[in-house]
Amino acid sequence: MTLNPLLNLDVVELRDRLASGAVRAVEYAEACLERIAALEPEIQAWAYLDGDYVLAQARALDARRQSGMPIGPLHGLPVGLKDVIDTARMPTENGTPLDKGRVPTEDAVLVEKLRAAGAIIMGKTVSTEMAFMCPSKTRNPHDTSHTPGGSSAGSAAAVAAAMVPLAVGTQTGGSVIRPASFCGVVGLKPTFGAISRTGVLAQSPSLDTIGVFARSVEGAAMIAEILFGHDARDRATTLQPTPRLQEAAKSTPLVTPTLAFVRPPQFDSVADDDTVMAFRELTSVLGEQCFEAPLPKAFDDAADLRAKINFAEMAKCYYSYEKRGRDQLSPQMTEALDAGNKVTARDYLAALDWRDLYNVALDEVFQRCDVIITPAAPGPAPGSLDTTGNAIFNGLWTLCGTPAITLPLLWAENGLPMGVQLVGRRGDDARLLRTARWLVEFVTNSENEGASS
Amino acid sequence: MTLNPLLNLDVVELRDRLASGAVRAVEYAEACLERIAALEPEIQAWAYLDGDYVLAQARALDARRQSGMPIGPLHGLPVGLKDVIDTARMPTENGTPLDKGRVPTEDAVLVEKLRAAGAIIMGKTVSTEMAFMCPSKTRNPHDTSHTPGGSSAGSAAAVAAAMVPLAVGTQTGGSVIRPASFCGVVGLKPTFGAISRTGVLAQSPSLDTIGVFARSVEGAAMIAEILFGHDARDRATTLQPTPRLQEAAKSTPLVTPTLAFVRPPQFDSVADDDTVMAFRELTSVLGEQCFEAPLPKAFDDAADLRAKINFAEMAKCYYSYEKRGRDQLSPQMTEALDAGNKVTARDYLAALDWRDLYNVALDEVFQRCDVIITPAAPGPAPGSLDTTGNAIFNGLWTLCGTPAITLPLLWAENGLPMGVQLVGRRGDDARLLRTARWLVEFVTNSENEGASS
Repeated sequence: MTLNPLLNLDVVELRDRLASGAVRAVEYAEACLERIAALEPEIQAWAYLDGDYVLAQARALDARRQSGMPIGPLHGLPVGLKDVIDTARMPTENGTPLDKGRVPTEDAVLVEKLRAAGAIIMGKTVSTEMAFMCPSKTRNPHDTSHTPGGSSAGSAAAVAAAMVPLAVGTQTGGSVIRPASFCGVVGLKPTFGAISRTGVLAQSPSLDTIGVFARSVEGAAMIAEILFGHDARDRATTLQPTPRLQEAAKSTPLVTPTLAFVRPPQFDSVADDDTVMAFRELTSVLGEQCFEAPLPKAFDDAADLRAKINFAEMAKCYYSYEKRGRDQLSPQMTEALDAGNKVTARDYLAALDWRDLYNVALDEVFQRCDVIITPAAPGPAPGSLDTTGNAIFNGLWTLCGTPAITLPLLWAENGLPMGVQLVGRRGDDARLLRTARWLVEFVTNSENEGASS
Repeated sequence: MTLNPLLNLDVVELRDRLASGAVRAVEYAEACLERIAALEPEIQAWAYLDGDYVLAQARALDARRQSGMPIGPLHGLPVGLKDVIDTARMPTENGTPLDKGRVPTEDAVLVEKLRAAGAIIMGKTVSTEMAFMCPSKTRNPHDTSHTPGGSSAGSAAAVAAAMVPLAVGTQTGGSVIRPASFCGVVGLKPTFGAISRTGVLAQSPSLDTIGVFARSVEGAAMIAEILFGHDARDRATTLQPTPRLQEAAKSTPLVTPTLAFVRPPQFDSVADDDTVMAFRELTSVLGEQCFEAPLPKAFDDAADLRAKINFAEMAKCYYSYEKRGRDQLSPQMTEALDAGNKVTARDYLAALDWRDLYNVALDEVFQRCDVIITPAAPGPAPGSLDTTGNAIFNGLWTLCGTPAITLPLLWAENGLPMGVQLVGRRGDDARLLRTARWLVEFVTNSENEGASS
């Protein structure tokens, strides 16, 4: 199948054409629907998709633009929503048979924002079981015998397969960065609390973070900027001015950025050869722009502490699911719930304290660099559909609430993509995006030089 | 002993005279020190008091005023601080031998604010063991065979005995309202998060609330207004404009207030005859201004839920005390810690959810009234020093984070004071103070009419 050239457009160009009417919303939506029709049997990225509803939204948006009414900043851009994000009058089944046929009456706050910005709600993308570890049906567009990662499997795969330009997911361990890395797209997990979670399945409120998928840093910035903001119903959000992410993503740093290479805990035991070699090369190409920052020994406990918080809060948040139908939960889920039910409040609260201590140590690193550079995953997507891969290189940053982005800059021996993860200081999402765009250009230029020399 | 007339001054009048120099700070501080010298052997309100240091502060304040430099809004007013509030270079022993000789290097944020406002740090008032239930040495100034209540025993007793005009305490269950009621003074526990707790012993961060003691509503408003405000180091505080509490406390409501009489859970089983009769009379005098608002059945669990949160968080916060010297803790404390250590994270988190549900129900009540009126305690101070009394009528409001004030308007058969507790909507501390002042005047006028008829 040849790719409709519309689907290859850079998202900024696409946004401008949709806004001007050079591309009609219906035209673009039809291209996406055709793409989905062709690839969905193999990829299985969608939990719910209603082409008629998509086209109805597109027609309404075209009519709005033609009438001269003001249009939103995401006018006509189709967005895929992980199926743990509530959509009014559209099924939201949270990846579990226990929510079969569940249709919310209200949109999640982030969905309201997307609609108000003129985006087209394309449909619901496949989530693993309740955004946890049991694999979903979705396959990796780069090689369908490989996992797309999880839990935001459908969102990452749909963007990677050019079914939609933008998608939304969630990360509690590594559920945005990991699938984005495996599927070769840009995944952004902003600072904890940047995007409201009201109307999104709560798994672990101290960790749950909304993230976005796009094929470029600019695309991620475009949708994130719309979603950022305070929501009185989500206590993690704060009354801070929304950062100008798009402007940051297209601006050039005044000074060449400095990056701190961090080998995360367990790097030596789990990072595969592809990753070790790729990062050796990358840090060498970065030269003086990059120094290695060793993390204090205390970070070795981060994975256990994060899991303790995750499981304890999950045991509370999923208690009613467990009561309604424990037999319909996966073994991965019941095992985690059993572990979570055993965590004492004292241990749980002590684990939460570590987040602050880790951030004190990270703040020291951030005094000497713009961003941390670190692998997004131990390697490319595992060649199996029975696992979603290892989130070990993501959980620390979720626990700390630091913004993280993965960039599809590396390739494994087997031809599968591998992400470069950049991590910023909490609240400094704009600098993270600016540095990410800089790195993409830097690596692209280096490769071109390498190719031409 | 005759009372120095200075000590009888209304606090607003006193503040004005100190500000104008009609009363010098040294003069007033000396009067307080004399009063303490005379009564302390009996009352035992102070954990630490250094007269020389008090006079040094007073002299510096006098010098400042005389030099024409601007003076603070609490210029020359001595304040007693519960001995769980850190004071730099002054012992803060948290009511436990485990902190014997502990001298903080930094002031608590609230102490910084008091100093900046020109207040005199009089000294540290006696706390029960780590602000929990085991009684302290302090006695009730109205009858020294009776408890002053707890845990802010010294602060309440010191204000009641006219040793200081103002004092600060903390409430996690009923540790401000109860001792204020037993000692016949005004106690204000503002909205949860209104006053920073940085530098104050943390017992249960979801419940711990700083409160103040004075002999009038205006006095409580005067010191509270200085202490309110955001502190980035205390996540319970918010970026809200500080309410104008003093102005509210002296303003007359535009419409005669409406009060909702609430019989708290267990009222029928624990309220003594004094309380039942006094409230029958009070609500009858209020007539149409007062209606009875029954609480939904779910509130019956509030005491257990609050205790679960308190004990679980205390087990975490006091873990190092338990490790260092469990044998030096009281049986009340070790029993609570044992209970707290058994609470699972799931139950703890579920208990926290109830706070929101209770507040939904309370918000409905507050749509029909200005404040809730309810007893501050089941009766007057028990005739024993082996208990601090029952906090059953306070914990619900601490859990819900609603502001509460107790007014010394009632007297038991045995001549001991009993408080009338008013409770406001969260964040509506100003209305609470305005209504409190109105009620004091209303009751005083009713009594005068009764006396003259």
